[in-house]
Amino acid sequence: MAALDKRTHDLKFVRTFFTTPTAEQGEADSAKKLRSAIGLRGMQAPDVWVPDNEDATAPNMRDEGAENIAEVVAEGGADFPGEIHPRVVWHRDSPETRYKGFQHMLHIADPENGAVENIDGFVIPEVGDIDDWKKADEFFTIVENEHGLEEGSLKMSVIIESGSAELGMEKLRDEMGKASNNLQRLFMLVDGEVDYTKDLRAITPTGGLPAWKELRHNTSRAASAAGLIAVDGPYDDIRDVEGYHERITANNAMGMLGIWSLTPGQVVEANQSPLPPAEGYWLIDADGREVELETEEGVEVYDGDRIELEAEDGGYELEVGGDEFFCETEEDLVAELLDLLDYVPSMDDIVDSMEEFEAAKEAGKGAIAMTQAATVRIDGVEVDIAQDRMWDEATYQALQTPITLFQDVYRNRPDQHGDLAELYSEDVVERAMSVGN
Amino acid sequence: MAALDKRTHDLKFVRTFFTTPTAEQGEADSAKKLRSAIGLRGMQAPDVWVPDNEDATAPNMRDEGAENIAEVVAEGGADFPGEIHPRVVWHRDSPETRYKGFQHMLHIADPENGAVENIDGFVIPEVGDIDDWKKADEFFTIVENEHGLEEGSLKMSVIIESGSAELGMEKLRDEMGKASNNLQRLFMLVDGEVDYTKDLRAITPTGGLPAWKELRHNTSRAASAAGLIAVDGPYDDIRDVEGYHERITANNAMGMLGIWSLTPGQVVEANQSPLPPAEGYWLIDADGREVELETEEGVEVYDGDRIELEAEDGGYELEVGGDEFFCETEEDLVAELLDLLDYVPSMDDIVDSMEEFEAAKEAGKGAIAMTQAATVRIDGVEVDIAQDRMWDEATYQALQTPITLFQDVYRNRPDQHGDLAELYSEDVVERAMSVGN
Amino acid sequence: MAALDKRTHDLKFVRTFFTTPTAEQGEADSAKKLRSAIGLRGMQAPDVWVPDNEDATAPNMRDEGAENIAEVVAEGGADFPGEIHPRVVWHRDSPETRYKGFQHMLHIADPENGAVENIDGFVIPEVGDIDDWKKADEFFTIVENEHGLEEGSLKMSVIIESGSAELGMEKLRDEMGKASNNLQRLFMLVDGEVDYTKDLRAITPTGGLPAWKELRHNTSRAASAAGLIAVDGPYDDIRDVEGYHERITANNAMGMLGIWSLTPGQVVEANQSPLPPAEGYWLIDADGREVELETEEGVEVYDGDRIELEAEDGGYELEVGGDEFFCETEEDLVAELLDLLDYVPSMDDIVDSMEEFEAAKEAGKGAIAMTQAATVRIDGVEVDIAQDRMWDEATYQALQTPITLFQDVYRNRPDQHGDLAELYSEDVVERAMSVGN
Repeated sequence: MAALDKRTHDLKFVRTFFTTPTAEQGEADSAKKLRSAIGLRGMQAPDVWVPDNEDATAPNMRDEGAENIAEVVAEGGADFPGEIHPRVVWHRDSPETRYKGFQHMLHIADPENGAVENIDGFVIPEVGDIDDWKKADEFFTIVENEHGLEEGSLKMSVIIESGSAELGMEKLRDEMGKASNNLQRLFMLVDGEVDYTKDLRAITPTGGLPAWKELRHNTSRAASAAGLIAVDGPYDDIRDVEGYHERITANNAMGMLGIWSLTPGQVVEANQSPLPPAEGYWLIDADGREVELETEEGVEVYDGDRIELEAEDGGYELEVGGDEFFCETEEDLVAELLDLLDYVPSMDDIVDSMEEFEAAKEAGKGAIAMTQAATVRIDGVEVDIAQDRMWDEATYQALQTPITLFQDVYRNRPDQHGDLAELYSEDVVERAMSVGN
Repeated sequence: MAALDKRTHDLKFVRTFFTTPTAEQGEADSAKKLRSAIGLRGMQAPDVWVPDNEDATAPNMRDEGAENIAEVVAEGGADFPGEIHPRVVWHRDSPETRYKGFQHMLHIADPENGAVENIDGFVIPEVGDIDDWKKADEFFTIVENEHGLEEGSLKMSVIIESGSAELGMEKLRDEMGKASNNLQRLFMLVDGEVDYTKDLRAITPTGGLPAWKELRHNTSRAASAAGLIAVDGPYDDIRDVEGYHERITANNAMGMLGIWSLTPGQVVEANQSPLPPAEGYWLIDADGREVELETEEGVEVYDGDRIELEAEDGGYELEVGGDEFFCETEEDLVAELLDLLDYVPSMDDIVDSMEEFEAAKEAGKGAIAMTQAATVRIDGVEVDIAQDRMWDEATYQALQTPITLFQDVYRNRPDQHGDLAELYSEDVVERAMSVGN
Repeated sequence: MAALDKRTHDLKFVRTFFTTPTAEQGEADSAKKLRSAIGLRGMQAPDVWVPDNEDATAPNMRDEGAENIAEVVAEGGADFPGEIHPRVVWHRDSPETRYKGFQHMLHIADPENGAVENIDGFVIPEVGDIDDWKKADEFFTIVENEHGLEEGSLKMSVIIESGSAELGMEKLRDEMGKASNNLQRLFMLVDGEVDYTKDLRAITPTGGLPAWKELRHNTSRAASAAGLIAVDGPYDDIRDVEGYHERITANNAMGMLGIWSLTPGQVVEANQSPLPPAEGYWLIDADGREVELETEEGVEVYDGDRIELEAEDGGYELEVGGDEFFCETEEDLVAELLDLLDYVPSMDDIVDSMEEFEAAKEAGKGAIAMTQAATVRIDGVEVDIAQDRMWDEATYQALQTPITLFQDVYRNRPDQHGDLAELYSEDVVERAMSVGN
């Protein structure tokens, strides 16, 4: 069955989870936003598109929303470059809501409506403990059976927005594969921090969302243990691009490579952020704040006021955030600066290093040193520095993740080939596709 | 049975957990501190009072302590405004200690001693894994049976002060409700960081307590998953009111709204801290330190030295912690300042916003923008700023927690009505009691 | 059987876990590094020595590595002062690797090779969920049975380097002691952050390792709950002694007292870091950075630029990181300074306090105040300060951990007696060995 082939193409990474209201009152076409979203292509198109028949759509519009999803996906789903996972209603505390969600799934997946071969799965919000997940799974199984789909072919993703769901994630390895469920259909674990905050009854003075770092760690860990994909919740301040980027960077350091996107602009940012940059750059720790050095004619320049440097008395006076260090020799100064500096490698740099390590390994060497050199200028004083890093098999494999991500993106998203080639150059893209295999 | 009615009045929140030694040697009346504590009223009286027959009382005084508890609660318990939960001795590694704790519970709950109708439950310290919790639960059941109390009517709270107890919390959803226990009696999960530090064998250079943030998150999460109440452990430096307040603020952001109090002064602070302030105020991020602006004749003033602002060259020079930004227009400056500023809403502000959102919802709108405007002055330069925030159903519900807390406090603590009306005004209290229902 | 006696000497703490390649190509003697490592004594010798037949040794050299281990331990194992736990190959996803690891264990533990009586156990890397741990345990049991060793006599330690292993740790209390396994043989839980980063697919811009604080907490907690020992993974930058020390300090505050060491220099640092210092010292919070005061002729001096102090207008002007406080009296100033200052007690100080508390307890007192006084000088202004700390039974026990650690080290490592006596003096060592018992 063709639909299943598509569904089994097996995304291994999800960078972007983009939600769209399914039906809006007072519009000539209540499905207008769905029709617009399904037309997205390239960096503006998400890895996973989520027609949102829950919170983004008014309760009295959700029956119409389910019909809109079926109609719009039937028309445009085949050409959409990402996967399509509608979110239906669900609540661990309400059988009425759960039954409503089941009915919407039944409708959207009905082959007569022509959408199901481009529906990859459904997103279930507000789940509770693992037994509640099983109730949702059972509805998936009934939907599949009613509609002649293969059991387990519709993927199930859940929103983690309660303490019980957070604990439920820890049981997946024990529960997936049991004879009386099809939980192997699980695909994404998505954090929902707004409702999680409510469920945990947290209070902040400004009303801002807590960071919930432990939740994100636990989600990433559970995804790793059960072969699933971890996705962070929405970042509400859509004008704060820098803040969104920082959140993604922090998430990536926990293994959470995907994030919710509320606008096509956020989709672009979240599609790019976890990939290595096109150009490498140096960071300096300016008294607790990480500052990017600017490259001027081959020299890396710090021009802030938090670090000061002066040649003096035959040595160097280095001042960081009010603390002074006197370096008697240039060697001492280089050592001090290396403690403050760090290099962010470009895609090209990473591919280079991997190629070099692969060659060394073939020649029988287990570890090699990679060097990154630069001339750094602070307050007009220029210093040559060089940073060494040992690479062994473990380093090689751990640093391979961004390349594996890139390769997965490249294979699954032909619509982004042009953007990627423009960003990195054809040559780098080609080499990145052939290392590490 | 009247006693049970009182016990089922069902506190949904606990702000304060106040312990008192039960028997002191060398005093004419060994129960003097108990008699003093049971007389507390208003903001000085805790939500939960804990006559402490464990660590606060010398081992050789604990039999007398159990008698004192029964006697003092029999006399004054009916008039005490909070719940009463004596702590008895217990240890996961000592059957002798466990049996002693059982005997003390049997005595305190004996109807002949006249205290039980005002005893809401017991606090069990030093529990281990979930099977150890069940041993304590079984003793509660026997005590209830012996004394003709309804099974499950005495609430059980535990102190989490071991790694095994921290893991035990994760199993509550699986274990509560099983036929052979009465673990539904569970009420509070209370962290005990001093003994937890010992159990985990942690060492800090100064001997100060580690922050144990993961423990607090896990406790709050477990409480949420099992319908219980999370309470943090003691804050030893009773003179450091600001530090205590900061700890409470950090706890609240994790959903842990209760904290141990060692003195009536700490009780006052901990009863007030999780409630919204009477007056709203602005915060500014002064190079990593959050500073409260002072209101002077309607203008919000920053008068520290970490941020500098000057009108210059037709624009503005803004300096934050040594980094300079030049803003060409006032609009740019406002954008920069909005990144640094945040508003802490008063009770009145929150009630206003909720009322406004409720009206919008009734009019069929799913989301509205709330605006907070102010004039900010830095180094004599005044700027008008306005901060927008989108409110939808999820925001509304997440921000409702402080109001729900207030309503619970108001219903359960008539003795605090006067203090609350004085703090917020009668009008605000009345409106706060009627929103969100 | 003599071998078992040695194996049951029961280290209660492990400060150092030192790995050595087992076979290197191109050397006249492929076991050269093993022979060198087994000769380490005193502070350079680790508590646990790990001949590393996994990542540190090239795959094609591992059969020879297993032979080298047996040979070198047969020769020098009896004189080695720490325990010996070779690491063999294992992988949750590869039965081939697991079988190879089993064969290596069989060889190393074969009494005919003469090493087994000085082999304390094996380290199993790359474990998955608890069922994978059981597979390894079963191979230990078969090895013991084949070689006539007592069941459970070989200790098993695991490297936690996957999400599934992190979750597996939480089940130890349920699984250890079951009739069909010998998991009571478990000894150390060792974090492996490089491979964990790979397993969780984490990405950092610079390629640096994430801090994985939650993993370390969970490891320490699991060790505590199951009576095991928590050890942190390797710290790659072997020249960065200060960074290594800071990592150890952070680990210790989580109850993780052991750490991997890659060089004898790291062993020395990691053997000493968790023990109290020989001399106490004061710390000051200099606008977010902890700075150690220097003692000059009995006065504690701060000579940085982040804190300024001046006698002025009959009071004191104190400036911290750009914020000014005016203190009208010396008393106010002392209060401000006490908020910034903290004292790190020496071994001597801790022993003193414990002795004092023990005497007080014997005299029937449950709590006493300990005072630490000093004269502090900032910008030439001298102030006398005194810090009080209440000690009760719980404080006493929590602060006893470094002493218990010291006593365990002293009992298990006679080869370090000389170094310890030199560091602390004979008198302090003797008193430290007799408090707290």
